[in-house]
Amino acid sequence: MKNVKLTILYDGTKFNGWQRQTNVKSIQGEIEKALGKTMKQEIKIHGSGRTDAGVHALGQVASFKADFTIPTDRIPIAINTILPPEIVIKSAEEINMDFHARYSARQKRYKYKIYNNEIRNPLYINYSYFVPYTIDVDKMIEATKFFIGEHDFRAFMSKGSNKEITLRTINSIDIYKEEDYIILDFLGNGFLYNMVRIITGTLLDVNFGKKDIKDLRNIILSKERRCAGHKAPAQGLYLYEVKY
Amino acid sequence: MKNVKLTILYDGTKFNGWQRQTNVKSIQGEIEKALGKTMKQEIKIHGSGRTDAGVHALGQVASFKADFTIPTDRIPIAINTILPPEIVIKSAEEINMDFHARYSARQKRYKYKIYNNEIRNPLYINYSYFVPYTIDVDKMIEATKFFIGEHDFRAFMSKGSNKEITLRTINSIDIYKEEDYIILDFLGNGFLYNMVRIITGTLLDVNFGKKDIKDLRNIILSKERRCAGHKAPAQGLYLYEVKY
Repeated sequence: MKNVKLTILYDGTKFNGWQRQTNVKSIQGEIEKALGKTMKQEIKIHGSGRTDAGVHALGQVASFKADFTIPTDRIPIAINTILPPEIVIKSAEEINMDFHARYSARQKRYKYKIYNNEIRNPLYINYSYFVPYTIDVDKMIEATKFFIGEHDFRAFMSKGSNKEITLRTINSIDIYKEEDYIILDFLGNGFLYNMVRIITGTLLDVNFGKKDIKDLRNIILSKERRCAGHKAPAQGLYLYEVKY
Repeated sequence: MKNVKLTILYDGTKFNGWQRQTNVKSIQGEIEKALGKTMKQEIKIHGSGRTDAGVHALGQVASFKADFTIPTDRIPIAINTILPPEIVIKSAEEINMDFHARYSARQKRYKYKIYNNEIRNPLYINYSYFVPYTIDVDKMIEATKFFIGEHDFRAFMSKGSNKEITLRTINSIDIYKEEDYIILDFLGNGFLYNMVRIITGTLLDVNFGKKDIKDLRNIILSKERRCAGHKAPAQGLYLYEVKY
């Protein structure tokens, strides 16, 4: 029996999110199907976490245990040709048996891309959040300080999650411009359901005067989703890296 | 009667190319439909040239003549909300009556994007040509010199064109790396059908040793399509600018 760690890239546009579901295309489902075909057995993989429909990944990690004969480092070449072109296995490596993609994760890094230009760029519609209004990056950066550190982030979690412990640590939120993009780079020990998107939307709401920067502390303390800002759309979000 | 010059961006992935056709979605057809709806009359636009299915544009130009009451500079705002999100009118301006997007064009600039990495990036599959082998950019640059200047480019034209005059001038082909991309930047007084894609494919064939750099002059002189290299795929091609 081997334990295998996969690093995975995908364009989430055409899929119904990470999680395996019946009758719809999911990233997990496609990878399990391709692995099963190659290894001639049923394979169940565990992702580091779910991503929603439309969310992309440049460094998703999954693990699975199985007996198989193909050399582990040949798995990407063998299954990338079977997978839809929007999903790519970047690497496969054998790892100690107690490794689990979700439970062993120590930190995650997400990026959120805002396309900030008066004119929509049709090439970016599935890959960024189009915001045609002036954004004061310094004001957004100032607002991030309320989120850094350990907090109960319940106010920044969508319904539909069964998480009971909503305490998380955000190590850093870097915000910078790259041509017409504004990129938010989140590093934390874990993120609640939709947490990156709701924090991003709240930071934009501060920028647009819909939320006051002075209220951010109280919004966090409220633990009420309705007190936080809007949820930025899925297509701007990228799971960048999972650290173990 | 006004003559209007439109500057247009589009993601060509989902369309059957620029040219209006019955029963399939084309860029020209979508724009004419949106303009017609807004101006309550049939509008026919003339593009600077056709682009194939999958080819993108960041600076396509089209013109049309019509009587209408909406201020010309409000046309983008009025029709961008009606157009599919993959097509964006960047600007509309009134121009002298003898201007014609195709016949008045003096120069065109195309870019061709190659994604050169061992691992396919699923986010780029519709926006670049994935080439997982080592590319010697200096060798490609050296090979471009045979194409610069005025030549009969018939060998680099796909069938299906009814062009009789196949003499064209290429002013420059700049090739440079940008992270994992190799970008070919073509400037010329006009390009035959698929000419940019066939020159790009031929330059890659030189790189891979399938064509010899010493034969390029003879390939041009042959005027035979079968002597030139392969046609690089549509999704790497961008119409960048039309100069008048």
